[in-house]
Amino acid sequence: MARTVAVEQPTIGAYLIKRLQDFGVRHVFGIPGDYVLGFYEQLAKSPIHIIGTVQEDGAGFAADAYARVNGIGAVCVTYCVGGLSLANPIAGAYAEKSPVVVISGAPGMRERVNDPMLHHKVKSFSTQREIFERITAAAIVIDDAEAAFGRIDDALRVCWQQKRPVYIELPRDMVDARPRHAHVSQTVEVPTDADALAEALAEAVGLLNKAKRPVILADVEVHRYGLGIELTRLVESTGIPIAVTILGKSVISELHPNYLGVYEGAMGRTDVREAVEGSDCLLMLGTFLTDVNLGVFTAKLDRSLAIEATSEKVQVSRHRYDGIAFGDFLRALANARIRKRALPKARARRAKVAKPGDVPMRATRLFELLNDRLVDGMAVVCDVGLCLFGAIDLVIHRKTEFLAPAYYTSMGFAVPGALGVGCANKDLRPVVLVGDGAFQMTGMELSSIVRQRQDPIVLVLNNRGYTTERFIKDGRFNDILDWRYELLPQILGTGWGAAVSTEAEFAAAWDRARAHRGSFSIINIRLEQMDHCPALQRLGEQMAANLGPSGKKV
Amino acid sequence: MARTVAVEQPTIGAYLIKRLQDFGVRHVFGIPGDYVLGFYEQLAKSPIHIIGTVQEDGAGFAADAYARVNGIGAVCVTYCVGGLSLANPIAGAYAEKSPVVVISGAPGMRERVNDPMLHHKVKSFSTQREIFERITAAAIVIDDAEAAFGRIDDALRVCWQQKRPVYIELPRDMVDARPRHAHVSQTVEVPTDADALAEALAEAVGLLNKAKRPVILADVEVHRYGLGIELTRLVESTGIPIAVTILGKSVISELHPNYLGVYEGAMGRTDVREAVEGSDCLLMLGTFLTDVNLGVFTAKLDRSLAIEATSEKVQVSRHRYDGIAFGDFLRALANARIRKRALPKARARRAKVAKPGDVPMRATRLFELLNDRLVDGMAVVCDVGLCLFGAIDLVIHRKTEFLAPAYYTSMGFAVPGALGVGCANKDLRPVVLVGDGAFQMTGMELSSIVRQRQDPIVLVLNNRGYTTERFIKDGRFNDILDWRYELLPQILGTGWGAAVSTEAEFAAAWDRARAHRGSFSIINIRLEQMDHCPALQRLGEQMAANLGPSGKKV
Repeated sequence: MARTVAVEQPTIGAYLIKRLQDFGVRHVFGIPGDYVLGFYEQLAKSPIHIIGTVQEDGAGFAADAYARVNGIGAVCVTYCVGGLSLANPIAGAYAEKSPVVVISGAPGMRERVNDPMLHHKVKSFSTQREIFERITAAAIVIDDAEAAFGRIDDALRVCWQQKRPVYIELPRDMVDARPRHAHVSQTVEVPTDADALAEALAEAVGLLNKAKRPVILADVEVHRYGLGIELTRLVESTGIPIAVTILGKSVISELHPNYLGVYEGAMGRTDVREAVEGSDCLLMLGTFLTDVNLGVFTAKLDRSLAIEATSEKVQVSRHRYDGIAFGDFLRALANARIRKRALPKARARRAKVAKPGDVPMRATRLFELLNDRLVDGMAVVCDVGLCLFGAIDLVIHRKTEFLAPAYYTSMGFAVPGALGVGCANKDLRPVVLVGDGAFQMTGMELSSIVRQRQDPIVLVLNNRGYTTERFIKDGRFNDILDWRYELLPQILGTGWGAAVSTEAEFAAAWDRARAHRGSFSIINIRLEQMDHCPALQRLGEQMAANLGPSGKKV
Repeated sequence: MARTVAVEQPTIGAYLIKRLQDFGVRHVFGIPGDYVLGFYEQLAKSPIHIIGTVQEDGAGFAADAYARVNGIGAVCVTYCVGGLSLANPIAGAYAEKSPVVVISGAPGMRERVNDPMLHHKVKSFSTQREIFERITAAAIVIDDAEAAFGRIDDALRVCWQQKRPVYIELPRDMVDARPRHAHVSQTVEVPTDADALAEALAEAVGLLNKAKRPVILADVEVHRYGLGIELTRLVESTGIPIAVTILGKSVISELHPNYLGVYEGAMGRTDVREAVEGSDCLLMLGTFLTDVNLGVFTAKLDRSLAIEATSEKVQVSRHRYDGIAFGDFLRALANARIRKRALPKARARRAKVAKPGDVPMRATRLFELLNDRLVDGMAVVCDVGLCLFGAIDLVIHRKTEFLAPAYYTSMGFAVPGALGVGCANKDLRPVVLVGDGAFQMTGMELSSIVRQRQDPIVLVLNNRGYTTERFIKDGRFNDILDWRYELLPQILGTGWGAAVSTEAEFAAAWDRARAHRGSFSIINIRLEQMDHCPALQRLGEQMAANLGPSGKKV
């Protein structure tokens, strides 16, 4: 073997920190613990900011939201008590394709000899890795200094290419270890099959040019692969109208004249449904055929009239092309000669929203009033339930300004999500839409928001329980305690809060909140318990039907 | 095949509820979701009480604490977003042998055909089960109505016998399904090998009779197998002095004249260490040789002079006996003819505790003052960190009155744990010892405590951060926000709170809290940031040493 030159290699911890920065990580969310303190110490000395949270699940949601805005995110916790507390948010990041790097401290390799009962251990030292294998795209343990750098590269590349979380377990005695041999970081990109691309493109262009009513349906992968500009270019060069899914919402400015609205099968607006389902050539870009995106499978999409391009394939009618990168296809389409259609007639301006009155607030009116008030520079971070379905028709002004866990639908995403958004882009002011049930789960991450001096506006849609479930099966188990959310600034030592019951009170509180900068604002919006928006009612009915006959037979 | 008589069988949901009751489950903790609503509806109509929590992890901790007091516990949640949020508390229940039945709703078997992208799904429909296989003693999916009753019986039996959590996944279309064939519930107990028991007993009795300084070291399994009375009988019939581990603390009344204290290697009190390590016949009962129990492996126990009986084996010196149930061995010992030793001389009464003064509160004094104030009927529920190590020398009055996650050491156990204790035994009033870091994680479960009209006394040991970690490696990452915990009653609409900084203020607040019944009390005890108890300092030093050389080589 050739002798290597005796250049000292970086420590494994230092290498990991450098590679995280190479991929664009500027903030790491998490909570320290003894098995990860050595790496925290290295992080603290690096340019990366450590963002402490009150609970690990909050760190996971924050890193997910950060990744959606920043392109990649990271979370760093201790072994098992920390890592296993991330299982739910990381599963959500996997399900919704959000690239989050999970770094977990762990007992040192030398401590593991003879399998002692170290604190935080569950069954075996591999328990945590085995669990993360099931909710990430790659799970590695840095148990060999020589192989460490290559494995870190591999894991980060999988995260970046697949836009899904990966798991890196760093035993505490490996943090300061150095490999003896040099390592060359490599970025192995799988190139697109040019012939396949040419053929697929020609076919797609032919179909689009022939079509009378082509429509684009854009979904989450356009966000994840950072292709919003290309998408807008495609829309403007062809004049084809565009709808989005709820998971893909805000992938194009919703003020764009070609923008139709959110498509969600029978749950969405009728005019959007008719345009999408009536198309004779539906161009589906980055789509994710989930039950929520498909309106609990009420969508009626004719695949024989569709072109679908995702990170996994390009499919035209019933045949598929492999080996084509999603970005290459979308860019090629945007540059292709496609017949330009007339821009749609300027749509009728939305009917003027009635002024807020001294009348009890209703959910439908809340979203109308909010629609009138959202401005550029605000990012809507939305939780699950009433707020998600009500938000379908919010008009988002720029791209990447609407975030929601719209497929995995874990409650508790939004408040820690706002923390992540605030770190990813200081110029975005999050507006958090969150139900009271979800707020109770993770809302105390306001504490972490205070520590970062961020100033989101948090709207708690308070209906004293799990109202989405009341529409499926009601019982006292759907009730929760009625907190005075507006008093939380007293607990946290800063912030501004108010409780409102009427439209006029809401309008006044919104103005106060907008003017309040430097710390969070929280508005406790008291709604009737069974108040809802039309989409929620339709969803509840659909889900109750899916429960099947409460019957005698299986 | 013989024709079966056409007697209608119960539904699977009804059968599960009945069997849970057979084993002693009276309360189920959890949060509903659409995949589990059908079973919640059945539960709501049954004699079992549903105890809603604000977060699933709180439900897991509450069920764990409930199981420790009640003998078995249960938690019921929805698929993935609920279940995966339980991963950490259930891993803790596994590690510390707490028998918790996890019931998770799931997509119906009929919905799973063609593998659609249903909301809450991660990789495949088996993801959640595969994860729970790694943190439970048995994980089953009720996917076959005919096999359902037998599988439920098997899972519950494993839970009961091994004192570890089990996982039962209940697809929503199976809840109301009924098997066609009758089922006979069987309880298969593995009988003790009588010959092995006789031989092991004879050997143990011989060694104990010969010994000059026998000592009993009792640990967690005495709690879990409900053998506290037998243990006390053994101590009283033989006069042998007894020490306990921190995980086994309160397994015998700490006012008992034979009680030595908590043994924890070099971290515990010196007199206890000398008695245990100087014994010429150490009888270890239900022991769990974890790093924490062994004082981060500073324990010096000579196995050749030890008799160890656990649920897994009976070991004398270097040889082991299999096939002996732990309870059978302990009962046989308590009934055996063992030389009775003189009761130890009455120990010097604890030096009188100085009266609370107008001086800043220090951790050491807090535990002294508390020791003077704990009375019968109080249960100390202890979280991790300063409070755990300080609590080593608290004097617990009756059995099963001290609960702590002393091995797995997950922060956030105590407040939801108090909820579980309050449900398990209404006559116990929990005194919660919790650090500010742990309180921020799960303390809002006070909301669930309010809903149950319980009145624990919550002591927040507030040092503005993760002080245990400061002793290992300090940095700003150990800081957290300073909440005004005492104002939480305003958020929750009930409760009583105070902030204290001096001994006298604490004493007055304690009296107020004791007198305040019907809702929780919370005392924000402001400590110096680096204040500590001696055990914590020793632990920090030990753990910092275990980090190893921050060195150049591995």
